[in-house]
Amino acid sequence: MLATLMYGPGDVRCEQVDDPRILKPTDAIIKLSATCICGSDLWPYRGLQPIDGRAHMGHEYCGVVVEVGREVTTVRPGQFVVGSFCISDNTCPHCRFGFHSSCVQREFMSGAQAPYARVPLADGTLVATAELPSPDLIPDLLATSDVLGTGWYAADAANVREGSTVVVVGDGAVGLMGVLSAKAMGAERIIAMSRHETRQRLAIEFGATDIVAERGEAGIARIKELTRGVGADSVLECVGMQESMTQAIECTRPGGSIGYVGVPHGVTFDGQAMFFAQRRMLGGPAPVRRFLPDLIDRVLAGKIKPGKVFDLKLPLADVAEGYRAMDERRAIKTMITV
Amino acid sequence: MLATLMYGPGDVRCEQVDDPRILKPTDAIIKLSATCICGSDLWPYRGLQPIDGRAHMGHEYCGVVVEVGREVTTVRPGQFVVGSFCISDNTCPHCRFGFHSSCVQREFMSGAQAPYARVPLADGTLVATAELPSPDLIPDLLATSDVLGTGWYAADAANVREGSTVVVVGDGAVGLMGVLSAKAMGAERIIAMSRHETRQRLAIEFGATDIVAERGEAGIARIKELTRGVGADSVLECVGMQESMTQAIECTRPGGSIGYVGVPHGVTFDGQAMFFAQRRMLGGPAPVRRFLPDLIDRVLAGKIKPGKVFDLKLPLADVAEGYRAMDERRAIKTMITV
Repeated sequence: MLATLMYGPGDVRCEQVDDPRILKPTDAIIKLSATCICGSDLWPYRGLQPIDGRAHMGHEYCGVVVEVGREVTTVRPGQFVVGSFCISDNTCPHCRFGFHSSCVQREFMSGAQAPYARVPLADGTLVATAELPSPDLIPDLLATSDVLGTGWYAADAANVREGSTVVVVGDGAVGLMGVLSAKAMGAERIIAMSRHETRQRLAIEFGATDIVAERGEAGIARIKELTRGVGADSVLECVGMQESMTQAIECTRPGGSIGYVGVPHGVTFDGQAMFFAQRRMLGGPAPVRRFLPDLIDRVLAGKIKPGKVFDLKLPLADVAEGYRAMDERRAIKTMITV
Repeated sequence: MLATLMYGPGDVRCEQVDDPRILKPTDAIIKLSATCICGSDLWPYRGLQPIDGRAHMGHEYCGVVVEVGREVTTVRPGQFVVGSFCISDNTCPHCRFGFHSSCVQREFMSGAQAPYARVPLADGTLVATAELPSPDLIPDLLATSDVLGTGWYAADAANVREGSTVVVVGDGAVGLMGVLSAKAMGAERIIAMSRHETRQRLAIEFGATDIVAERGEAGIARIKELTRGVGADSVLECVGMQESMTQAIECTRPGGSIGYVGVPHGVTFDGQAMFFAQRRMLGGPAPVRRFLPDLIDRVLAGKIKPGKVFDLKLPLADVAEGYRAMDERRAIKTMITV
């Protein structure tokens, strides 16, 4: 089959590879209904994260099971499934506490920017729907696999509640999903920090009540102004840089919470400053598996439309253009049809 | 009156000073029933924190109101009161959220190692009891002012719940109060990390179920062993050094929580390491005012005996010896009678 390979910074190719096959009795092979490019794929694309040889790209996926290993019991060929970008067994203590992304058997999914993919630990990782979903719901279901699950976790980690005042730092796909999540959790006020008109529009569509275009000191001052000097109850940090983290901390009220889901690159915290700032913090790779059943239900019930985050759709052969468009910020998020 | 002054590292004196008087209409003057020396007083005593000129020491206090400013309405002369080491108005947004230690009018109490003290913002800071308490309860009530309130906050910030597995890092007075607090909150297992026999005994008396004498890597390995490789739900960091903080983080399970109340000295966190560790963190000066009514009730009802933490009682004239005894770890915590 054709699949997406990254050879180095800026070098993504669609090339012939062997079809995936069952390697362990707990594996499943799925035929993807669609796949997509993640903001985190841009870290190695931009040379900010090393890759070891050529990398099989893609970790967001949904599709139909075509084959399962002999130990797989909860999914079967013909079923439509969504899985998390984090492979987990769903039985270890960390999974039972809802932190599947720290599963003792954790692996990170790869190779999903292709027509077929192997999913390890299929029983623990995949969630099947009762019926094959309508094709127009595929983008929404695909989004639950990572980008929505991650935005949802940011809101969950930031303790968003009914009536909360929320700030979302970062207007990438994850930040926009954070806006949608905060809205779904009942936040009263959702302030999206964004300078890009198309993203501002989408943020408002997803439930943002205010847009702050300023960044850094000016952005913090504007948030303070909008919250009468108090700061927000919950701040979602969806970037992962020192500047955005500082912005997130400063925009939170004392005793408020920061959920950080942008993988930190070059970020450090000073212990004494954090102590006196008195902010609650939780970050990490999102335990999407915890949220998947609920998120899939919301999509199937038509309550949320996270698939709107895909503003570019390309066939697999054009995957390199999908990366370029995201790198150059011409696209928020690229969906790949396979 | 005689009062406690610190002139520099190791230099504490009991000297004549002016009696405190009402400076603002929101002040109260109290006659102390007892006072004490805090672990945080040892930072400047050991030269690890600068002091500006001579410092009026003491921020833990309880006693009887002798005079109030004209705007004070909730306490009156003759009432027994306890206050937090953090002065707060109890009306600002941060106080209303329960984070009195970030009050917009926050001040830190001083000058309480003396027979009389001025308490600013008396209405917001002081909590009065219905009657004058029995003299034997004074040490317990005094403890609520800071050391118990801080241990309680550590447990609260670390999300201790009914049935939790808790680790307490630090066997100073605050750590021991953390043990008592975790017990009162229903923790099932409380592992106290302590190398000192007298402190181990007190930890067990306060509710510790296990003692770990090892530190650093060996201590972490022992905690992992005791928790079947999982780590604790809640860890209370009651020291404030890099080593103890690392120990706290490593002893927590993914998704677990760390409440840190030791003022961090030279502590930094790496953003990416914290991200992948996936620990929830909240620290800061304790918002004791939030907990005071409940803690006072528990003491008056005889449910908790935090005053046992005082293992040395000295008259004010001997306050310098009280500092020495704590500095040299001959005493856990010194109570001063005035």
